[in-house]
Amino acid sequence: MMSELDLINWLRKRLGGVNEQILVGLGDDAAVIKWASDRKLVITTDMMLEGTCFLAEHGMRRIGRKALAINLSDLAAMAAEPIAAVVSLALPRSLDLPAVQELYEGMLALAEEFAMAIIGGDTNSWSGPLAINVAAIGRAGPYPVVRRKGAQPGDWLFVTGPLGGSILGKHLDFIPRVREALRLSHIVSLRAMIDISDGLARDLHHLCQESGCGAIIEEEHIPISSAAYALRDGVSPLEHALSDGEDFELLFAVAPEEGKRLLQTQPLQDLDVILYPIGECIPEGIYIRYRDGHLAHLPPLGYTHRFGN
Amino acid sequence: MMSELDLINWLRKRLGGVNEQILVGLGDDAAVIKWASDRKLVITTDMMLEGTCFLAEHGMRRIGRKALAINLSDLAAMAAEPIAAVVSLALPRSLDLPAVQELYEGMLALAEEFAMAIIGGDTNSWSGPLAINVAAIGRAGPYPVVRRKGAQPGDWLFVTGPLGGSILGKHLDFIPRVREALRLSHIVSLRAMIDISDGLARDLHHLCQESGCGAIIEEEHIPISSAAYALRDGVSPLEHALSDGEDFELLFAVAPEEGKRLLQTQPLQDLDVILYPIGECIPEGIYIRYRDGHLAHLPPLGYTHRFGN
Repeated sequence: MMSELDLINWLRKRLGGVNEQILVGLGDDAAVIKWASDRKLVITTDMMLEGTCFLAEHGMRRIGRKALAINLSDLAAMAAEPIAAVVSLALPRSLDLPAVQELYEGMLALAEEFAMAIIGGDTNSWSGPLAINVAAIGRAGPYPVVRRKGAQPGDWLFVTGPLGGSILGKHLDFIPRVREALRLSHIVSLRAMIDISDGLARDLHHLCQESGCGAIIEEEHIPISSAAYALRDGVSPLEHALSDGEDFELLFAVAPEEGKRLLQTQPLQDLDVILYPIGECIPEGIYIRYRDGHLAHLPPLGYTHRFGN
Repeated sequence: MMSELDLINWLRKRLGGVNEQILVGLGDDAAVIKWASDRKLVITTDMMLEGTCFLAEHGMRRIGRKALAINLSDLAAMAAEPIAAVVSLALPRSLDLPAVQELYEGMLALAEEFAMAIIGGDTNSWSGPLAINVAAIGRAGPYPVVRRKGAQPGDWLFVTGPLGGSILGKHLDFIPRVREALRLSHIVSLRAMIDISDGLARDLHHLCQESGCGAIIEEEHIPISSAAYALRDGVSPLEHALSDGEDFELLFAVAPEEGKRLLQTQPLQDLDVILYPIGECIPEGIYIRYRDGHLAHLPPLGYTHRFGN
């Protein structure tokens, strides 16, 4: 059995760094390429596998939607505007045409919602389970590309929604925070951002590691979703909020004065999104402060099987 | 069982046409997006599946190389310069780290050869067979993008190399005709082009269908590879050259005066590539003229399971 961490580490060394054309390579939510003029090209890809990322019983329309939505979430994390996607399918031979059409309809409804195009792909039949790959490109700017790195001690940390329990449905039906990210990029300077796909604790670790800083988050300010309470599986709602993957909310850092302004104005309310200030960046160490004042190290709980962007 | 043709036809209608931003959508070797300035963005994606497109015994390095090479061949068919690729892997849990590294080394060696970057991706483990998806972007221009459509009656048809029998090795180790396509795009006006992935006869049908014309090809001018002779499987070498997939040579159309010039100058000899004039475009119907002068309809022999770009 391979250690995924070993593979990540090897890849990050082997794939080489950035240059004057490749502005962001492996290790962020998406890669960024300088392209002719001022508008940078952002590209991301995600593969969804039956049995691992979804089950056939979820229904083809929702599965198709999710395959595109997880890519849009990566573009959102870079504050990029989605432009187009290409789709590859490995179809079990037993699937019939209406099932594949449903899959596409799920993607297309979401693509239309975000005014982007599905412009091609590759479709194959095989004897294996269903596999769906989407690669999406977006356009960043005119503001600087928002990365995982860039957060500074003192910055406020926000999330765009309640966390935990996505397994009850949000992992399929979440709204990728594209509009929210674009609006935020216009009204504040986003120092660093990531989408919460692996769980708050783990993605906070990713953001801090890339930024070279630490963080303290406050138990009393972490928004816990009703789904996390509904699970009643012996794991506390707080732990669900910290460690469940696939909420696909954004976690971002802004300078304190801008954080105060966001808190006062709540500029995403018309999108039904509340911004929750969950803590702040510090020079080093990643901690959670419990309601009783106790400060504890926060380990990178959460989902580990994926890597890349 | 689904009819793949039904799915293609449905997709081509459903995905919608081109607009001022999407210059080429589904139905060509790659899609083309207008991007800020004069240099257009070309994007393609291909999924390779164990058991269908390759066998584990081919070796991970060659498999990885092929996964990228088939995308480069699509970019070549649009006369686009490769810029970057993202890679998604679905890895059987039994694969160890060195095997995955070998896979990447195969891709990276080819990427370096073509001065492009692998800039990210998504890696997952699962209980299914190995699946590899690559999405590659390239830059077209400054000349017009070369499409499958655009060939006109009277145009000469060329291929960039001998055909048939790729199963003996070329389907893994072919050199994508990127340099050849770029040079050709500089010295002649490429009216239409496609890479021969499904077989000469089938891809000729694709090119003619998109161009709204027909073609006559001459048996005596079709270059047949030594591999096609070596197969000795009861199928004639000519039939192998017409119907075998995955030669990944280019088939293109140019105006007659430019065809003559290419034939006289053979401008790709320093790349070890001979240009073979195999026939010409006509108003309608797709024919082969046998050595004895007999003219016969040429059906779309060849590989059918893939579609898209």
